[in-house]
Amino acid sequence: MDFSPSARAAELTGAVRDFIDGEIAPVEHDLHQRSARARRAGEPVSWRVPEEVRELQRRARDRGLWNLFADLSNVDYAPIAEATGWSFLAPYVFNCNAPDTGNMEVLEKYGTPEQRDRWLTPLLDGTIRSGFAMTEPAVASSDATNMQLTAVLDGDEVVLDGRKWWTTGVGHPDCRVLIVMGLTDPGAHRHARHSMVLVPIDTPGVKVERMLDTMGFLDEPFGHGEVSFTGARVPAANIIAGPGQAFAIAQGRLGPGRVHHAMRMIGLAERALHLACERGLARTAFGKPIMNLGGNRERVADARIAINATRLLIQHAAWKLDAGGPMAALSEVSQIKVAAPNVAQQVIDFAMQIHGGAGLSSDFPLASAWTAARAVRIADGPDEVHRGLIARLELADHGAAR
Amino acid sequence: MDFSPSARAAELTGAVRDFIDGEIAPVEHDLHQRSARARRAGEPVSWRVPEEVRELQRRARDRGLWNLFADLSNVDYAPIAEATGWSFLAPYVFNCNAPDTGNMEVLEKYGTPEQRDRWLTPLLDGTIRSGFAMTEPAVASSDATNMQLTAVLDGDEVVLDGRKWWTTGVGHPDCRVLIVMGLTDPGAHRHARHSMVLVPIDTPGVKVERMLDTMGFLDEPFGHGEVSFTGARVPAANIIAGPGQAFAIAQGRLGPGRVHHAMRMIGLAERALHLACERGLARTAFGKPIMNLGGNRERVADARIAINATRLLIQHAAWKLDAGGPMAALSEVSQIKVAAPNVAQQVIDFAMQIHGGAGLSSDFPLASAWTAARAVRIADGPDEVHRGLIARLELADHGAAR
Amino acid sequence: MDFSPSARAAELTGAVRDFIDGEIAPVEHDLHQRSARARRAGEPVSWRVPEEVRELQRRARDRGLWNLFADLSNVDYAPIAEATGWSFLAPYVFNCNAPDTGNMEVLEKYGTPEQRDRWLTPLLDGTIRSGFAMTEPAVASSDATNMQLTAVLDGDEVVLDGRKWWTTGVGHPDCRVLIVMGLTDPGAHRHARHSMVLVPIDTPGVKVERMLDTMGFLDEPFGHGEVSFTGARVPAANIIAGPGQAFAIAQGRLGPGRVHHAMRMIGLAERALHLACERGLARTAFGKPIMNLGGNRERVADARIAINATRLLIQHAAWKLDAGGPMAALSEVSQIKVAAPNVAQQVIDFAMQIHGGAGLSSDFPLASAWTAARAVRIADGPDEVHRGLIARLELADHGAAR
Amino acid sequence: MDFSPSARAAELTGAVRDFIDGEIAPVEHDLHQRSARARRAGEPVSWRVPEEVRELQRRARDRGLWNLFADLSNVDYAPIAEATGWSFLAPYVFNCNAPDTGNMEVLEKYGTPEQRDRWLTPLLDGTIRSGFAMTEPAVASSDATNMQLTAVLDGDEVVLDGRKWWTTGVGHPDCRVLIVMGLTDPGAHRHARHSMVLVPIDTPGVKVERMLDTMGFLDEPFGHGEVSFTGARVPAANIIAGPGQAFAIAQGRLGPGRVHHAMRMIGLAERALHLACERGLARTAFGKPIMNLGGNRERVADARIAINATRLLIQHAAWKLDAGGPMAALSEVSQIKVAAPNVAQQVIDFAMQIHGGAGLSSDFPLASAWTAARAVRIADGPDEVHRGLIARLELADHGAAR
Repeated sequence: MDFSPSARAAELTGAVRDFIDGEIAPVEHDLHQRSARARRAGEPVSWRVPEEVRELQRRARDRGLWNLFADLSNVDYAPIAEATGWSFLAPYVFNCNAPDTGNMEVLEKYGTPEQRDRWLTPLLDGTIRSGFAMTEPAVASSDATNMQLTAVLDGDEVVLDGRKWWTTGVGHPDCRVLIVMGLTDPGAHRHARHSMVLVPIDTPGVKVERMLDTMGFLDEPFGHGEVSFTGARVPAANIIAGPGQAFAIAQGRLGPGRVHHAMRMIGLAERALHLACERGLARTAFGKPIMNLGGNRERVADARIAINATRLLIQHAAWKLDAGGPMAALSEVSQIKVAAPNVAQQVIDFAMQIHGGAGLSSDFPLASAWTAARAVRIADGPDEVHRGLIARLELADHGAAR
Repeated sequence: MDFSPSARAAELTGAVRDFIDGEIAPVEHDLHQRSARARRAGEPVSWRVPEEVRELQRRARDRGLWNLFADLSNVDYAPIAEATGWSFLAPYVFNCNAPDTGNMEVLEKYGTPEQRDRWLTPLLDGTIRSGFAMTEPAVASSDATNMQLTAVLDGDEVVLDGRKWWTTGVGHPDCRVLIVMGLTDPGAHRHARHSMVLVPIDTPGVKVERMLDTMGFLDEPFGHGEVSFTGARVPAANIIAGPGQAFAIAQGRLGPGRVHHAMRMIGLAERALHLACERGLARTAFGKPIMNLGGNRERVADARIAINATRLLIQHAAWKLDAGGPMAALSEVSQIKVAAPNVAQQVIDFAMQIHGGAGLSSDFPLASAWTAARAVRIADGPDEVHRGLIARLELADHGAAR
Repeated sequence: MDFSPSARAAELTGAVRDFIDGEIAPVEHDLHQRSARARRAGEPVSWRVPEEVRELQRRARDRGLWNLFADLSNVDYAPIAEATGWSFLAPYVFNCNAPDTGNMEVLEKYGTPEQRDRWLTPLLDGTIRSGFAMTEPAVASSDATNMQLTAVLDGDEVVLDGRKWWTTGVGHPDCRVLIVMGLTDPGAHRHARHSMVLVPIDTPGVKVERMLDTMGFLDEPFGHGEVSFTGARVPAANIIAGPGQAFAIAQGRLGPGRVHHAMRMIGLAERALHLACERGLARTAFGKPIMNLGGNRERVADARIAINATRLLIQHAAWKLDAGGPMAALSEVSQIKVAAPNVAQQVIDFAMQIHGGAGLSSDFPLASAWTAARAVRIADGPDEVHRGLIARLELADHGAAR
Repeated sequence: MDFSPSARAAELTGAVRDFIDGEIAPVEHDLHQRSARARRAGEPVSWRVPEEVRELQRRARDRGLWNLFADLSNVDYAPIAEATGWSFLAPYVFNCNAPDTGNMEVLEKYGTPEQRDRWLTPLLDGTIRSGFAMTEPAVASSDATNMQLTAVLDGDEVVLDGRKWWTTGVGHPDCRVLIVMGLTDPGAHRHARHSMVLVPIDTPGVKVERMLDTMGFLDEPFGHGEVSFTGARVPAANIIAGPGQAFAIAQGRLGPGRVHHAMRMIGLAERALHLACERGLARTAFGKPIMNLGGNRERVADARIAINATRLLIQHAAWKLDAGGPMAALSEVSQIKVAAPNVAQQVIDFAMQIHGGAGLSSDFPLASAWTAARAVRIADGPDEVHRGLIARLELADHGAAR
């Protein structure tokens, strides 16, 4: 057993941290303040990418900090994902943001050469963005077999009819393509009914009905859209890995993505703990630093324990994913999906209390962090569904039906 | 012991419920959707009071549902406050909204006839609104003795210099006056240094620097402001109950207000539980109503227990306030300040999980409810400060210094 | 609404408290030390009733503190039950101990004159004790329809075959009769299959196989027994309220009993909190009273909130029981069954931590209190079953099948 | 990063598991039943070592499963410690039980050749046992500087006066020596006042006043004693590492011991989870396996997450101890001291609920496991003290005084 990172992971993590601290943080602070001021002033939300951010992307690429998720093992990428969790901008600056990373992995793993040429290359290049359209407003989408949007084969075309929402990334000005999960063969086995289809965003019949807010935040410029599909036709060649393969693809897509998400949550939690310690030592009430009042120090300790234990849980899941692939790490991946956002939410909650009113406001990144962590407890399957899977696998070891 | 409400409380609670269901709810739903659409479309926030709401106020007044907080005992008003917690608009429609209720109570209890004529009458009439300026950005305001804004006597005037924030209500178009807590005599006993001063909003030197958002919500049209005071002069006759009385006033002000807040939290929790039950029974996943999956039913039970126990705790505190006044119910009032928003937050959190993505969006009132409950854990003193007070009183019974 | 106790309840509660403090506490302390010394010395457990305790019973009776559970409404008896929770001996001294109270209530409510003469009179007199035999070792007894011991009618006799355990009271030297739940008609509706039968302990075929320990404690002299029934015959006239009525009886039996149990748990929690405050102020570590370290004061506050809220929940349930009977208070009674022992366990846990090693030992009543509270989370139906019932009733209000 | 165990660790862990399953488990089951029967029958506790256990020791030694803690790195020994946590007997059978392991480590690290010859050799040989006397009944012992027993130099002797308790191991028939912490120089720096002294158990003036029970369990044949020292004289050469070194020694002693304890807690938690799954699938209530009722499956999932995360936390702490020694892993060791018993207690609590009444009784090892985990939350410093240390180290990184 060896808990040291590889030399390459250590070096890249250091470079990413330096770049975030030195280059991204100041820009992010400015943009955050600017957008908070705009919100307070009642100004319209901007959906364009600020030029400063495009410039950061160019510089990150020059320094080799680009597409790292694609070049490294999960265990080596994990500390980098944590580092990017300190910043809301960083994942995008390094071309490592959801949902594009997951979409790129799908194309890399299952795409035809034509699909890869047309979509993967510009995604890796950062010249286009993409969305992933799975969740539907009319059904409980935590059960993916519920999905009702139809993706019917008609000659050498596939026709999509239905409605998706929480399609993240669809608001981005560079968004060009969606991976859409649709029902192709209702009579097949429940895990073979659905297909994943590449749908260019400008396909006739595709319409972004509205952008959704997450607790008041629109998460511009990516955003989350409600998208309708009305007789939208694309070539059958746009089906990834053939009809009925949606479940197999989804399974494989989510392992690494969940490691990224979970490690970013750890980064967010670390940042919140850092802010709590700074503020708690700097401000005084009732004659003492706030940190020395009541149970605050115990909460620091509990945060440290929870963060460390959960980070190790994620690193171990990443290691298992690397070693045996997604099917070998099913339970582990669900475990981190449950643990990480809950830990982050709890630590951020503490940091908010320590900050008092300031913790609720846009003057600190805590309110955004808190809503981000809260949303992750639902995104990609709510906690409860993952707990169900973990229990099912555990009980199967004791002879229960799997 | 008798847990039945008085006949009058029962009748008025019924009337309030009917009015909310029949009159307010449809308007609120429309306004909520309209404002969510505006937010999504990036439109500017509106700070005016919609005409429909002014009309609701007139109708409520016609039916005798006006200023009920002022006419009833705390124990009789408690179930009405709970009923208004189901709606974000209701407190204002019934002229029972914070911070105006607290300010009216202060004027009623401590105001001179002149102060009452000038401010209390139009507040009770609903023709003006007011703010309460206590918290400051530069110090830990959970310790009220920290407040640094100066309110210095200069002849028959008092001069205010400093900065407040989280001054709720200052964004309202009818806001005409602030009650400002300022430091008058730094050499006095720590509980006799500060004064409460009535400051007309148009006093030269008073400036609303910006409106603050609570996790992205501006809570228009009331809002929370950061307000600077630069050599702002008002007559010394505007000091309430004389110089150095701020602590005595704050103590008395907060008891009933905390009962109102806490009962509204119970109303909010009941509404969230109601929505969770409806949604959990209506939607199906993995072949069952969502409500029958995992631990959801246990969470319904835990919510029911926590809501019922906390409601009783608040009613008992109200009863003690009525019987013995704020000093007799110090611990009880702090207990409900801690318990109520935490219960509400926990129940709303569950309701959000049951709603999946919809629970995060503006399509349901849950995200707003959640941020409201979260903010109450800080407003009027964070949980931790109240826990400290409860413990201090408990330990004093065992001989510790009080 | 009125939270004051009735004059009679207040007076009797005061008398009970005085008797416990003045008379019972010293005896209990001696007996506790004596039995701890005996355990440490490896001496045999004694199953007789110490003469001092019989003397306490006589004195309590002389003062009119006898069978109070039977004379008072639930709401009036509740504070008395809380007072007796401070002492392990008190319930027995006042002839108000489980399971005899529940058995007496059953006989009072459902017994024939003959059954009452033979069993109720000496139980009220304290000259005999009784047991309640429901739980079985071979089946999940949280579902009472699972019970397999047969109680078959044979002419004018009923014959019992099967095995029970956790039959509390069977070790008491005065135990003379058991109320046994048996399966009489397997073909009837699931709630009409079982009967309650009065079985004298000396009936041939009845055998106490062993006494069970609860986490190492035998709870002498009452104890919990595993009892076998082998062709045990009693007159059919010993069936209470006729064959098939076991469920109806059990339902009615448990309401008041659960109020008693729950209030005793509150008494236990108060005592633990009291001990924690005393110890926490008296001992010093790292230069401060232990109570001022870490989150201890917050735990005092949380204990105070939880105890107060839960007490009110129980008092309200008692009031509802009084007003509408057990069927009107089904959910409320289950709510207190869940809430009270959990609160007690949590407060006692805190008190143990404050006491350090002493809290684990027999030098303080905390270890016994903790195991008592832990056991109550299972006795009379585990938490989970009660949560299930509460949820079922809640969801029935939203249209789910009841 | 590599999460695989070394070949040697894997092989030895397998051998230990096989030995426990094949050899120890049947003996342990018999002894557990025998001692439960004896307790129920009121028979005296036996303090001798059953011959079967001595035979198991011989066989373990023959197979090379002896003193493994001493031969392996912490990270390699960790999975073995976990395996031994499934059994109450195993640590002793493998000569790896507390407090002897810690005492052996102290002698190995700090002992003179004479001290090692006289005490370490027979301890490694298993022919004698030892105790560790630190905690005192009269002071809050969580602050080790509080210790008042005096160890005064008098010529070439050291004289001990005072009283200790929770001296584990003192009841063992082979116990021959205690390591006693005593106050030597009250005027020195607070961390240089105390000495560790080797005191043969038969030294005149040393008296075991009584054996203490932990929630009713005496933990025979080791036991926990209250020991008085009255003018007890031993040669000054019995002081370990010289006068005033007690703190330095305690610091070094506790790192590995806490890894052992924590990993045994993980083993205990795994066993409880295993039993919960077995029972939950085997028993039926309300028409379903108990495991499928309410939130039980979620609790399985939460247990799996908590166990896995905490195991990794411990393994990481072990790795850090190996790499940098106890001072480099101070926070990590305190983290596992807090996390492990809390996780174990929570998982065991769940397993008890699943078992119903059986879970409280001696028919299953759960009640003993629960009290064991509860006691560990106090032994070697209560949770709160460790949380305080973790926070202190965390805040020191933000500039607070260390």
